[in-house]
Amino acid sequence: MGFDFKFEIVAKDRETAGRNGRFPTPHGIIQTPVFAPVGTQATVKAMTPANLRGVGATLVLANTYHLYLRPGDELVRKLGGLHRFMQWDGPILTDSGGFQVFSLSQTRRIDADGVTFQSHLDGSRHRLTPEKSIAIQENLGADIIMAFDECPPSNEYDYVKESLARTHPWLERCAAAQTRDDQALFGIVQGGIFPDLRAESAAFVTGLDLPGYAIGGLAVGETKAEMLATLDVTVPLLPREKPRYLMGVGEPEDLVNAVLRGVDIFDCVSPTRLARHGSAYVWGGRFNLRNARFTRDAAPIDETCGCYTCTHFSRAYLRHLVKANEILGHILLTIHNIYFLIHLMEQMREAIGQGRLRPFADHFLSAYEESL
Amino acid sequence: MGFDFKFEIVAKDRETAGRNGRFPTPHGIIQTPVFAPVGTQATVKAMTPANLRGVGATLVLANTYHLYLRPGDELVRKLGGLHRFMQWDGPILTDSGGFQVFSLSQTRRIDADGVTFQSHLDGSRHRLTPEKSIAIQENLGADIIMAFDECPPSNEYDYVKESLARTHPWLERCAAAQTRDDQALFGIVQGGIFPDLRAESAAFVTGLDLPGYAIGGLAVGETKAEMLATLDVTVPLLPREKPRYLMGVGEPEDLVNAVLRGVDIFDCVSPTRLARHGSAYVWGGRFNLRNARFTRDAAPIDETCGCYTCTHFSRAYLRHLVKANEILGHILLTIHNIYFLIHLMEQMREAIGQGRLRPFADHFLSAYEESL
Repeated sequence: MGFDFKFEIVAKDRETAGRNGRFPTPHGIIQTPVFAPVGTQATVKAMTPANLRGVGATLVLANTYHLYLRPGDELVRKLGGLHRFMQWDGPILTDSGGFQVFSLSQTRRIDADGVTFQSHLDGSRHRLTPEKSIAIQENLGADIIMAFDECPPSNEYDYVKESLARTHPWLERCAAAQTRDDQALFGIVQGGIFPDLRAESAAFVTGLDLPGYAIGGLAVGETKAEMLATLDVTVPLLPREKPRYLMGVGEPEDLVNAVLRGVDIFDCVSPTRLARHGSAYVWGGRFNLRNARFTRDAAPIDETCGCYTCTHFSRAYLRHLVKANEILGHILLTIHNIYFLIHLMEQMREAIGQGRLRPFADHFLSAYEESL
Repeated sequence: MGFDFKFEIVAKDRETAGRNGRFPTPHGIIQTPVFAPVGTQATVKAMTPANLRGVGATLVLANTYHLYLRPGDELVRKLGGLHRFMQWDGPILTDSGGFQVFSLSQTRRIDADGVTFQSHLDGSRHRLTPEKSIAIQENLGADIIMAFDECPPSNEYDYVKESLARTHPWLERCAAAQTRDDQALFGIVQGGIFPDLRAESAAFVTGLDLPGYAIGGLAVGETKAEMLATLDVTVPLLPREKPRYLMGVGEPEDLVNAVLRGVDIFDCVSPTRLARHGSAYVWGGRFNLRNARFTRDAAPIDETCGCYTCTHFSRAYLRHLVKANEILGHILLTIHNIYFLIHLMEQMREAIGQGRLRPFADHFLSAYEESL
């Protein structure tokens, strides 16, 4: 008897496809819609686990490709698994390694069976297959694990079609390779920006009874309009009663637009990456603390924000830290940015519970500009 | 009526010159002996104020030279002073800027009136005088401020003697320049490693009735034996009823050796700097987490340590963070190293209270080696 990953929908919005859910995992219930901060190398950059709890994080993502290469999944297993290793006792999701093999490794050769590649760290040669990816993810021990696939360029029809044919069988191999029954394996629908390929992929992937389904291959270069159009055709192809995960997304406006369309789970490196570049999310967009207009600004980043950074520090101090390249600048902006996205998800859950997601989203999106 | 900075000795050790004291400041009482972490640019590197509280810090040091250049002391004053700016509501000590002018600035010319120098940041020209240093320190608003002097090479007799003659008058100018009565101005005894010059300087400096006295010019290249010999002759020249501050020291063994000799206040960048290089203090010395022998080590840095790092994370995880150059590695090692030194001071205060500082020190020093 394995763990029962039964997704429960607790509220549906009145006018939109937005819904609130509860997804149980061995490390606690995930309330959806949820934003997962990314802890690539078994740490969300610049955050202690206590900081992560403090900003309200529940689900955290870690990257299989990085952890396989360093410190190694066998080592993590011997030290009690990823939760114990990084001291995060909440739910963890690992990706399959496929995306990073294609985006980070030095050279790679894909064949019907898997991918051979060279490490970006030391050039050493490695091979990932569906079976190997599942074995690594079992060693890491996350609560949610992902099927191994290819993330093709979203706007090359022939390539995407060929890629689907190659990697759909990999999903069956992933499912067959699973030996642990306490990890939820999610299948991934690919198909780029092409409705017919999304339909083909969704038909195949949802043909397997899995505890959740992901939408892959977006936020990789297509326009925002193409992304939303693809969500419009893809989300309805996924079963209502299973959680839907939009991989690698996103920016605040993306989160709102995707929750409106019925997506439940998100992850993105933006809040941590932007923080290291001195940028902070605010209602209406974001701004960079390097800007000289903040030199004497005694106000917090956001007067209405309840995070540790905004309840203690001025923009002038944060600007000073950023200009002086102090680690505390990274820490405080990361705290704020992750809090902002998690708080945005909370606001959307509340709006869904009250049947007013549409006016909330309209209000948010009408104010939103990419850079202020 | 200014603030009453009256130092109170609450316990004296039986066999040594060690003593426990209480030094009241506008931002709280400092229990001595105390170790002050260094927050050069208005931040103790990689630590939030909450982290600092968590490791038991009371007194924090900030550097006048750095803050004068960036963000500027006028800006800090306009934003409510350093405590508010960096959100540290405990006691703060600022140095005079003199030491950094001599160690960091690009070019400097010293004359009877002060020092002209170029910023290490942008090459801009600046001038510091005793009056200017006090004005900057009043803008910053620390609880303890330091007299402006030169920190000469400790083993060049003629230079040190000449420097004393030049900078003793500066102390009187600093005292005369003070306009705030809520900051404790400490005088600094110089004199290098030369007993006659230390005596000359101590006679002059303690001739002014100040709330505390510092020993400067040590830990700048002389041997450990020379430092201890200098403490042996200098500490007895300072009044018993005032706090004694050994500037820029030190390593764990230095702290123990100096507390034995009656020093009350310390600061040093070592715990934060070592952390950024992957080194951790332990009873008996320190070790570097980069060492391959920690690859699979599930133990904490120190089994007996009560810090956040040691109560949560394995050496293997910390080694992974250090090798992967993750900010969390800096954060967690900094937490541990500062906790270690502050806990060491607590242990010494307890030993002094029980009249057993000598056996405690013997036990500590017999185990101590610089690198393990």
